[in-house]
Amino acid sequence: MTAIGIIGSAGRMGQALAVAVPDLGATLIGGIDAGGDPVSLAHDAAVLIDFSTPAALERTLAAARSARTPILIGTTGLSTTHHALIDAAAGEIAVLQTGNVSLGVTLLAKLVRDAAARLGPEWDIEIAEMHHRHKVDAPSGTALLLGEAAAAGRGITLAEAKVADRAGLTGARSEGTIGFASLRGGSVAGDHLVIFAGEGERIEIGHRAENRAIFARGAITAALWLVGKPAGRYSMEQVLGV
Amino acid sequence: MTAIGIIGSAGRMGQALAVAVPDLGATLIGGIDAGGDPVSLAHDAAVLIDFSTPAALERTLAAARSARTPILIGTTGLSTTHHALIDAAAGEIAVLQTGNVSLGVTLLAKLVRDAAARLGPEWDIEIAEMHHRHKVDAPSGTALLLGEAAAAGRGITLAEAKVADRAGLTGARSEGTIGFASLRGGSVAGDHLVIFAGEGERIEIGHRAENRAIFARGAITAALWLVGKPAGRYSMEQVLGV
Amino acid sequence: MTAIGIIGSAGRMGQALAVAVPDLGATLIGGIDAGGDPVSLAHDAAVLIDFSTPAALERTLAAARSARTPILIGTTGLSTTHHALIDAAAGEIAVLQTGNVSLGVTLLAKLVRDAAARLGPEWDIEIAEMHHRHKVDAPSGTALLLGEAAAAGRGITLAEAKVADRAGLTGARSEGTIGFASLRGGSVAGDHLVIFAGEGERIEIGHRAENRAIFARGAITAALWLVGKPAGRYSMEQVLGV
Amino acid sequence: MTAIGIIGSAGRMGQALAVAVPDLGATLIGGIDAGGDPVSLAHDAAVLIDFSTPAALERTLAAARSARTPILIGTTGLSTTHHALIDAAAGEIAVLQTGNVSLGVTLLAKLVRDAAARLGPEWDIEIAEMHHRHKVDAPSGTALLLGEAAAAGRGITLAEAKVADRAGLTGARSEGTIGFASLRGGSVAGDHLVIFAGEGERIEIGHRAENRAIFARGAITAALWLVGKPAGRYSMEQVLGV
Repeated sequence: MTAIGIIGSAGRMGQALAVAVPDLGATLIGGIDAGGDPVSLAHDAAVLIDFSTPAALERTLAAARSARTPILIGTTGLSTTHHALIDAAAGEIAVLQTGNVSLGVTLLAKLVRDAAARLGPEWDIEIAEMHHRHKVDAPSGTALLLGEAAAAGRGITLAEAKVADRAGLTGARSEGTIGFASLRGGSVAGDHLVIFAGEGERIEIGHRAENRAIFARGAITAALWLVGKPAGRYSMEQVLGV
Repeated sequence: MTAIGIIGSAGRMGQALAVAVPDLGATLIGGIDAGGDPVSLAHDAAVLIDFSTPAALERTLAAARSARTPILIGTTGLSTTHHALIDAAAGEIAVLQTGNVSLGVTLLAKLVRDAAARLGPEWDIEIAEMHHRHKVDAPSGTALLLGEAAAAGRGITLAEAKVADRAGLTGARSEGTIGFASLRGGSVAGDHLVIFAGEGERIEIGHRAENRAIFARGAITAALWLVGKPAGRYSMEQVLGV
Repeated sequence: MTAIGIIGSAGRMGQALAVAVPDLGATLIGGIDAGGDPVSLAHDAAVLIDFSTPAALERTLAAARSARTPILIGTTGLSTTHHALIDAAAGEIAVLQTGNVSLGVTLLAKLVRDAAARLGPEWDIEIAEMHHRHKVDAPSGTALLLGEAAAAGRGITLAEAKVADRAGLTGARSEGTIGFASLRGGSVAGDHLVIFAGEGERIEIGHRAENRAIFARGAITAALWLVGKPAGRYSMEQVLGV
Repeated sequence: MTAIGIIGSAGRMGQALAVAVPDLGATLIGGIDAGGDPVSLAHDAAVLIDFSTPAALERTLAAARSARTPILIGTTGLSTTHHALIDAAAGEIAVLQTGNVSLGVTLLAKLVRDAAARLGPEWDIEIAEMHHRHKVDAPSGTALLLGEAAAAGRGITLAEAKVADRAGLTGARSEGTIGFASLRGGSVAGDHLVIFAGEGERIEIGHRAENRAIFARGAITAALWLVGKPAGRYSMEQVLGV
């Protein structure tokens, strides 16, 4: 069984990882949190999973490089400086950094990009999402990721196409825009729907998460995939084979 | 067969009415538009259907009162002055004025009000709607009507509960609010969905219009129901019997 | 805090109840399983919740009557003999027996009955449901309960209207039937959708369960509602106030 | 403007084609029905669209070959003999024969095949469809086409995986099967939904047709694409570029 070490083990995602690791045929070799020393953990583990803070990243990457242990980084809020550190580490070890660890969402983004590339601008693209009442931002990061996939399929940038606050006298829809709508309520783990609306027909591509355990499962699956890979920077798309 | 007269016969709704009248077992006795004289039409018709302009309302109501012909008024943009005219006419003839002539939507509003009255404030209410790319305002009038039904069920006003522009760092959802999300694209005639999101479960109440002919059918059904009714001001709820 | 006793505490529902009781402001006073003695539990508890087996029902009811403790019975597979025992007990204590402990589903059934009563037979009724891959029967018990609510709204019986196996050369749909469609897959806790399909429009009334904890919450809510009620046989509709 | 000739012009699809041709920048040069002579029509038209009967196919193809006019064949119920005739014609002219002329459904089938190829057998595949009350068979031809796309993505045949009549004591779902569920009611032009249900999440890929005009539009788009193509047998996938 592959030994997994967790950076940020006391956080919500760290705890979910600890629960899910045995279900996926791996074993949890240990975990650290703020102030903990990643060196021995990096040596003991076959792969590291990091869901901690940007501030801890430099020490974590140094330990991983020293131990030549691959690492999956799911920490959010990274700056260009952090990305430069990751690029440097990827010269020596296998690294996968991503803001989305769901394999389902990764596939969805691929399908959305393909559909957007095939359907002309006379098909309007709209993205709706629903999350629990505690979520503090809108649209969700996953909705924006799907919007970027749609924009990429069309050969444009999301920044030029995004419409996220449709209320009042909006006027008719502008061709080529990508609209977002956010719903909040209850305990919804995360629903996303991308709609391609054409003349007389709609194509809808969606994802429903029943709970947050799917993110832990996706992170572990990706981490296990990294074991044995040559140095380099990898993506969730590669894990999925798309 | 009941003889129906149309005020505003050249408009989009007027044309749709002309097509639908024979399907519902009635006959079209005539129609007028801006500048036309409603007096003889009111005398010939068993019931009038008005989808014209607020400016024409005073003459139309005078003709209906003079002929003692009931009237369904679907014209939008009415002021308090217009409503006073309608109330005065309702002292002599049967009048039904409404911003929504769909019987399906009327029933939906009833179900939403009932559900909101039974489910406590720990159930978050969200309303999503999708319409064609040419629609110039958001949320739709029907979405607002459903929001008012939900608010009425809770004993509050929509004005105090409405959240219609959720984008950016919104913070967590405030208990008791009613959120709106608007999607635009393609040729969608009108989809509405009211979501009650509780802890671990959702109740969803929705309506899908395949085309705009349903509004013509609803208006004619309501007009036929008015024939023979005593003087008074009626509602779509009464037509549906809810 | 109200003291709750569980009959069938080791079963899947019994365990879910134990987890949920503290969340709802009650306390778990104890639980028994096959062979256990309900007498002292019935005396210690303010209310009993029974999700065990039909075979245990007679002893359980005797203990509840002796202690004058109200009881919620969610055990399935009851015969007419069991129902006679329940009716007898309801002469002395408050009893609520139901095959559905979800308050959301209870409300849904009410909305479906109301809608069916208002919409004429030209509106076709279809019921779709999706459950996890382990479910062994179709349609689900909840789908059938919703079908009975629709049939009751129309003043017919489900037995005469039910169509549950639409495949092959079925011919056109018969007016007045109620169709069922069952989907199975993944870990879906339970989605239900009742569709009223008319000419040019659809009304859809649905429920989504994110997990099975909602059933435990519903059972506990109903049990707490029973405390202090006079002797009699109660329903989930009364708990919800519909 | 490209001149289009219609074989089967009096049928439902023939009439829809006549309405849609001008909207797509083409012109209707003529049409024939049972007993009509296709020879001069084939000479006058830049492309033929055939939605007639299998019995007429031989004469139609002979006329098209003689005039060297490409042809789109949407006629259903073709035998292997008819397919041999088409193959022979494709040696001389461009021919596209298909049971599905919707470009949206063509794209959907491509997305479903790709998703099925990426997601392992632990993702259960279910296909739901809804059509109007007059439809006499179930599942719909489009649902079966989507099922074949899913099976192809998995490297199996639909025949071995198909489950279309889930009712009663079905037992648990068998891994690797593809389930179908059919809903019928109202005037629904055609909704299809392919669900990939995994542990804790679902991916849903769907298509909604608002009316049957989209099929006429798809047929005309494909016919216009055929003009100028070298002899050969083409597919809707090629029209869409997937």
